[in-house]
Amino acid sequence: MSAKEHNRNKFLSEFPALVNELTEILVQYGLPKDAIEWYQKSLEYNTPGGKLNRGLSVVDTYVILKGYKSVDDLPKETYFKVALLGWCIELLQAYFLVADDMMDKSITRRGQPCWYKVPGVSEIAINDAFMLEGAIYMLLKKHFKNDPYYVDLLELFHEVTFQTELGQLLDLITAPEDHVDLNKFSLEKHSFIVIFKTAYYSFYLPVALAMYVAGINDEKDLKQAHDVLIPLGEYFQIQDDYLDCFGKPEDIGKIGTDIQDNKCSWVVNTALKICNKEQRQILDENYGVKNSETEAKCKKLFNDLGIDKLYHEYEEKITTELKTKISQIDESRGFKGEVLTTFLNKIYKRSK
Amino acid sequence: MSAKEHNRNKFLSEFPALVNELTEILVQYGLPKDAIEWYQKSLEYNTPGGKLNRGLSVVDTYVILKGYKSVDDLPKETYFKVALLGWCIELLQAYFLVADDMMDKSITRRGQPCWYKVPGVSEIAINDAFMLEGAIYMLLKKHFKNDPYYVDLLELFHEVTFQTELGQLLDLITAPEDHVDLNKFSLEKHSFIVIFKTAYYSFYLPVALAMYVAGINDEKDLKQAHDVLIPLGEYFQIQDDYLDCFGKPEDIGKIGTDIQDNKCSWVVNTALKICNKEQRQILDENYGVKNSETEAKCKKLFNDLGIDKLYHEYEEKITTELKTKISQIDESRGFKGEVLTTFLNKIYKRSK
Ligand SMILES: [Mg+2]
Ligand SMILES: [Mg+2]
Ligand SMILES: [Mg+2]
Ligand SMILES: [Mg+2]
Ligand SMILES: [Mg+2]
Ligand SMILES: [Mg+2]
Repeated sequence: MSAKEHNRNKFLSEFPALVNELTEILVQYGLPKDAIEWYQKSLEYNTPGGKLNRGLSVVDTYVILKGYKSVDDLPKETYFKVALLGWCIELLQAYFLVADDMMDKSITRRGQPCWYKVPGVSEIAINDAFMLEGAIYMLLKKHFKNDPYYVDLLELFHEVTFQTELGQLLDLITAPEDHVDLNKFSLEKHSFIVIFKTAYYSFYLPVALAMYVAGINDEKDLKQAHDVLIPLGEYFQIQDDYLDCFGKPEDIGKIGTDIQDNKCSWVVNTALKICNKEQRQILDENYGVKNSETEAKCKKLFNDLGIDKLYHEYEEKITTELKTKISQIDESRGFKGEVLTTFLNKIYKRSK
Repeated sequence: MSAKEHNRNKFLSEFPALVNELTEILVQYGLPKDAIEWYQKSLEYNTPGGKLNRGLSVVDTYVILKGYKSVDDLPKETYFKVALLGWCIELLQAYFLVADDMMDKSITRRGQPCWYKVPGVSEIAINDAFMLEGAIYMLLKKHFKNDPYYVDLLELFHEVTFQTELGQLLDLITAPEDHVDLNKFSLEKHSFIVIFKTAYYSFYLPVALAMYVAGINDEKDLKQAHDVLIPLGEYFQIQDDYLDCFGKPEDIGKIGTDIQDNKCSWVVNTALKICNKEQRQILDENYGVKNSETEAKCKKLFNDLGIDKLYHEYEEKITTELKTKISQIDESRGFKGEVLTTFLNKIYKRSK
């Protein structure tokens, strides 16, 4: 078993205890059995099962900040608390995804039916999403109430949650799946959407959480982390958009659907910026249409426009910028550029 | 203008400033204009417009606790903060109601289309609900961060929100509108549902918030408030259930729909407890059916069973118990039984 698999399994093995703790709260309240079982099923169906990158990043970051060699060197109680924060991000993500799938009318998620598509669930999934978020604050209170950074954790979760919802809002009104209007698109909106909808909770949040636990909480250090992780998160999503269109299905493990889904993707926004009038008309007529011929026309246009090349230029430029920023990180208060390098290395030139 | 109207208008007049503050946060983030306007519209459409009893109760309770004669005697800044907490409850309620209407597939709310029924909104309402809740924590941080009871406010909102969601969950799985199964009903479940879904956020929350601001925060005092307000909230909901079936439309301002909607109401649960086999069959065949004849059969049965009389017996019993409890309130640390009497008087023998 690789170290990566080992760390993932160790992290996964903490989850049942958290379900038990949440169950215990419901038992104390006197909630009838069928409702308790419903909540357990929702927690288990929606929370693990993804790549767990966000949750694992909390642990990995803490290990680097504290100079441990391996996650196994952390004292048991410390590991538990840091992993718990990782699971809180996974709960936050579960809350977002359950709702996002309903809003996008998606059918499957992580190889199984979306939660709201499970027989008997339907719109109850809205309240289930609420309760996935609610779990975060029940767990934080139980395990961090007496820590000096407890309020920081609460405020961080509140703010990042709100930011993600703002990104989601802009995405929903800019690119509704059933009404294509490319006039609403722009690279500026794309940037806002991906930073708010993805970068804050996926990149900044795990690092900031680990920093609070490690006691590295100077505003200057949080800003250093923020100022690399937010553009890094934007790069990650731009890459995701690029791979959806240009990646090989055998690499990315799925067939891209952004064109047919009218996604406000970096690819279409870049095309819109550089296309001529005739090309724009092709996009107006073919983007966001649920049909493989119209999709092929868009792909051809993206090839004609050299979006592929523009992506690689962007990738080189942003990684150079990020490396420079990381090399200039002030480590005098205990923050470490290595935290950021680790993130960058996971992303640079990934093909899946 | 009555004092009540005056207080309501004064409270309402604070709301635009809160919308402005929330707008300002979005402007600072650089959110595009169309998304900012969307959020403003959601805040304005969903937050005021109800009776505002919960929000006003925070102010009223604070006035009593501090011994003011009128809300106009509060220092301006104090009034603002207490009213802000009132608006936070109204935001919490807006969050619940936007979602509840989607889950119940309701058509109208407060005399206008439900938010998700407004053209162009649809499932985006889920994210809008999230952002109504998110507003609470943005406002609390801005105005209470430096108060010693800030964490208490956060934890109180977290816990009461979670409790309400638990009540909603049990309600949803016990009484789905499209699948009648009276075996799932019981007076015990009814009690849990109404206490968790309604009593905590509508009765306990406003008083507890005012107590924290007033500095009356001893666990014993919070428990004194809790131990009256929770059964009082249950009484309020039982009364609501009673009026839905037995109230005069001209008094309650609407025509009851609980029977056709398969509501897990106190009326049907009481009937289920005392009915014989034949009567049970009538209920099984006619309750929760969308049809005025089946509804009339249920009503006749409720009359035959004397539910009306049982309600009045319950009402006398619970009010006597509550009055006794209130008379025994220990006011030595500053809490006042008058807070609870005020609530009880608003409810006792109300016909609308
Ligand atoms: Mg989606
Ligand atoms: Mg989406
Ligand atoms: Mg993608
Ligand atoms: Mg409803
Ligand atoms: Mg409902
Ligand atoms: Mg009712």
